[in-house]
Amino acid sequence: MSVPEVVINRLPQYIRCLNDLADNGINVVSSQHLGKALLMTPAQIRKDLSYFGRFGKQGRGYLVQYLIAELRHILGLNLQWNLAVIGVGRLGLAIISYPGFAPDGFQIVAAFDSDPKQVGIRVGGIKVKPMENLNETIRDKDIKIAIVAVPATQTAKVVGLLAEAGIKAILNYTPTSPQTPNDLIVRNIDPVLALQSMTYYLNAYRQD
Amino acid sequence: MSVPEVVINRLPQYIRCLNDLADNGINVVSSQHLGKALLMTPAQIRKDLSYFGRFGKQGRGYLVQYLIAELRHILGLNLQWNLAVIGVGRLGLAIISYPGFAPDGFQIVAAFDSDPKQVGIRVGGIKVKPMENLNETIRDKDIKIAIVAVPATQTAKVVGLLAEAGIKAILNYTPTSPQTPNDLIVRNIDPVLALQSMTYYLNAYRQD
Repeated sequence: MSVPEVVINRLPQYIRCLNDLADNGINVVSSQHLGKALLMTPAQIRKDLSYFGRFGKQGRGYLVQYLIAELRHILGLNLQWNLAVIGVGRLGLAIISYPGFAPDGFQIVAAFDSDPKQVGIRVGGIKVKPMENLNETIRDKDIKIAIVAVPATQTAKVVGLLAEAGIKAILNYTPTSPQTPNDLIVRNIDPVLALQSMTYYLNAYRQD
Repeated sequence: MSVPEVVINRLPQYIRCLNDLADNGINVVSSQHLGKALLMTPAQIRKDLSYFGRFGKQGRGYLVQYLIAELRHILGLNLQWNLAVIGVGRLGLAIISYPGFAPDGFQIVAAFDSDPKQVGIRVGGIKVKPMENLNETIRDKDIKIAIVAVPATQTAKVVGLLAEAGIKAILNYTPTSPQTPNDLIVRNIDPVLALQSMTYYLNAYRQD
């Protein structure tokens, strides 16, 4: 049975929420409680989890630590993932320095730039390589995921090169949504969508 | 009637999708078609939109341009929003240089840093100010939204200062989820959640 993409996209939020509960010493949680924390209906949560088997017993709730471990296993978060950053301008440098990736098993192990002035510089223990080294490095370091932080005009070209080099998943920081081959997974970091979901609350339109 | 937060959070995605349809010359769209594009059920889409009135006629679909205009109005995107960036390290500099905000009505008009070495530098036409100027500038420039790009250890303190200064909404780029006053709206830019939703597809666990 194929699991809908929206369900997969919610699982990391489940884990985040369950980790918070565990940190607060909570061992068992009901779908009602989980739903309240995630702004979802209990029925939706039970349905989402049912794709992966039975995690709780009727009326008893879910064992928090067990559910965390199972969801991490399902998402492959028990593994270490090697990442490459493409584009080492301001944004790429900031991404390489971001302290939030490594604790969750995402290790940036390579960085590339097409600008000869950027090639060879060292940042976060990584030496920036020219784009010509892409295929070789991605193969040698077993990199499946790339973070793209190039100028918007370069996105399509770079995504094409990454697909050819064997990259399977792209985290796209550019303000464009590139057309991609079907077997390439892309998530966009889109701060504008986040801003647009806040202005509603600042707006005089609201009638409630 | 209060609209659930999850519904509000989906509206920007509706607009994004409708804009794509409009760009492709599509004038009318059914909830089935919209649902397919957004990976949602048609019933959910009809329910979401019903919070704001009647936008389509049974069996006729939605007028794309009209729906875009209405949703933009509901979210306050017909207005110009002034933003401040707090923290002008690598990430803050990258954010100020990001070309995706201004076309959508989000204008970065001020930047602040607590480091005297950063204060006074000019970036993107903005002169970085010391944190001491926060309250005055936020009042004078009618800033309601702040982007926080400080080190994780500073987040809680900075969020407190922003709340005091009259900021109503925060886009948080730090890898922490700060406790905030109830009337402050926060969205986190969380690249790790995005990565975690991709590894599922790279993982050998899948049985389908």
